[in-house]
Amino acid sequence: MIKNDLFLRALKGEEVKRPPVWMMRQAGRYLPEFMAIREKYDFFTRCRTPELASEITVQPIRRYGMDAAILFSDILVIPQAMNIEVQMKPNFGPYLPNPVRDQRGVDNVIIPDVHEELDYVMQAIKATKELLNDEIPLIGFAGSPWTILCYVVQGQGSKTFDKAKEFCFTQPLAAHQLLQKITDTTIAYLKAKVASGVNAVQIFDSWGGMLSPVDYQEFSWKYINQIIEALKDDAPVISFAKGCWYALEEMSNSNASALGIDWTVTPQFARKATNNNITLQGNFDPVRLLSPPSVIKDMVKKMIDDFGKDRYIVNLGHGILPHVPLENAKVFIDAVKEY
Amino acid sequence: MIKNDLFLRALKGEEVKRPPVWMMRQAGRYLPEFMAIREKYDFFTRCRTPELASEITVQPIRRYGMDAAILFSDILVIPQAMNIEVQMKPNFGPYLPNPVRDQRGVDNVIIPDVHEELDYVMQAIKATKELLNDEIPLIGFAGSPWTILCYVVQGQGSKTFDKAKEFCFTQPLAAHQLLQKITDTTIAYLKAKVASGVNAVQIFDSWGGMLSPVDYQEFSWKYINQIIEALKDDAPVISFAKGCWYALEEMSNSNASALGIDWTVTPQFARKATNNNITLQGNFDPVRLLSPPSVIKDMVKKMIDDFGKDRYIVNLGHGILPHVPLENAKVFIDAVKEY
Repeated sequence: MIKNDLFLRALKGEEVKRPPVWMMRQAGRYLPEFMAIREKYDFFTRCRTPELASEITVQPIRRYGMDAAILFSDILVIPQAMNIEVQMKPNFGPYLPNPVRDQRGVDNVIIPDVHEELDYVMQAIKATKELLNDEIPLIGFAGSPWTILCYVVQGQGSKTFDKAKEFCFTQPLAAHQLLQKITDTTIAYLKAKVASGVNAVQIFDSWGGMLSPVDYQEFSWKYINQIIEALKDDAPVISFAKGCWYALEEMSNSNASALGIDWTVTPQFARKATNNNITLQGNFDPVRLLSPPSVIKDMVKKMIDDFGKDRYIVNLGHGILPHVPLENAKVFIDAVKEY
Repeated sequence: MIKNDLFLRALKGEEVKRPPVWMMRQAGRYLPEFMAIREKYDFFTRCRTPELASEITVQPIRRYGMDAAILFSDILVIPQAMNIEVQMKPNFGPYLPNPVRDQRGVDNVIIPDVHEELDYVMQAIKATKELLNDEIPLIGFAGSPWTILCYVVQGQGSKTFDKAKEFCFTQPLAAHQLLQKITDTTIAYLKAKVASGVNAVQIFDSWGGMLSPVDYQEFSWKYINQIIEALKDDAPVISFAKGCWYALEEMSNSNASALGIDWTVTPQFARKATNNNITLQGNFDPVRLLSPPSVIKDMVKKMIDDFGKDRYIVNLGHGILPHVPLENAKVFIDAVKEY
């Protein structure tokens, strides 16, 4: 059905002539065509308007021809649908004016009907599928329950998410109730996304690495794994847990189709920790995209050599930075295509 | 000479009846007696006035009786002495109004006479040694050259230190010159501290974990190792590289006397990665000090069991948080003493 199925074949572990490539946040601020839309429409308008979300999603594909598109959206549409106010403040990032800090706060969080509350996402998927015309697969995503809890409790971004951790460590029962509500909502949300047309889903555990290995199992992985188990017959699931090198082995024994890897993990360590039994995705340091083009090209080649061309999806180790030159992004993508 | 030499014996790898304990940032904002001084004197006045710095250093010892004191100071006194303006802004943290971003900026950085420019630190050490009266050892510290570069180039704290990394990746020659200047200054500074009376030194590589393993070798570890080599005959050196689990093996083969470990590393991994051949220090999650006292007590006991009582220094995995209850800090220290 999908003409370029490199990405889906890599997720199945099939042999490929070269690894597929896409970039986290590829539909983003480094693109002038994205900035043109951003100047006219605010963040949530872009997310909620299918014509805008789909157009933004395909912009990088038109320019660079990645092997997969990822729907333009945000992980915080989930808490927003759960009756928690989320603002996106310019030059600040997410701001939640009424963070959840106690049992009463957890009780006020609802499990929404995602088909109703998040219908705009489903419409955006349908619009994007039309634009993509089955040329390449479309990825849908969600934040991990722990990462969503981080924002919902902390109320904003943080270097340590200490208030989120404090909530878990001092009110574990309330924390687990909140995590379960987020998990249930996320499962329904991702199933609806697959039904609407996405070909794979990725779970972003951006703040998993704030937790110790023991606490990670209790407050994050347990819930990610529930999502993987619930989705495994619907679509391939990629789990990207930034900073969670210590959990790679356990994650590799799950029903995830692939694991995302950040740039602090060497390909050798990642393959060994996962017993060479799962597709890996990553892990170019996003700041390294500011290196001279010849350096980027050499580093991409070495990265593919080190991971191996099969069971591997080329990506960054985190989202692309806003000030990456267009030429450098092109060199990154082309280096994979020329491999 | 020092009456309680548990800490120094652990650094030598000698057998001890129980591991020594201290806490990073133990002379800090969780103490009401520290806050009383903080209300009267600004940050650099506290650093520069030997009577204040020494009083602050011994405050936690009086209250809890840790097995080592660490001189109250800041890693940014080094760039300040190198002709770089450093401000400490309330509710913001360090701010460097003229960050170094090019060769000209590097050329303007001087290698100071530390005995002159940082004499106030040496006076603070002498005053502290008098207050401590040889009861316990005194630790001196410095930031790693990479971590100092992070602030000098970025100009302030950051979640990614992307400007610092960009500088290294796009202007590597200038970056290495800057790192060498910081290294030379740090070596002279730490040697002067030892001559003034500190019994051990710790190098804080707070932002090493922002780098990939390959870049860490080039831009951080190489310079830390120069410092270790230069200091090895003067005093025991502890290297604490937050987020650098991937470099533990290499660091364990250096002449460092101990390695600091953050809370994302299990004791089992740390011992294995270091081939069980070096003293380890850490690694209690600072946010876990907000857990109920009985939980803290159990976790400390388990941590010591897992690291083993020898070749081990109990500590946090990063600095103590300002809102930790006094009782919880006491439970942490006492749990070690009662082991």
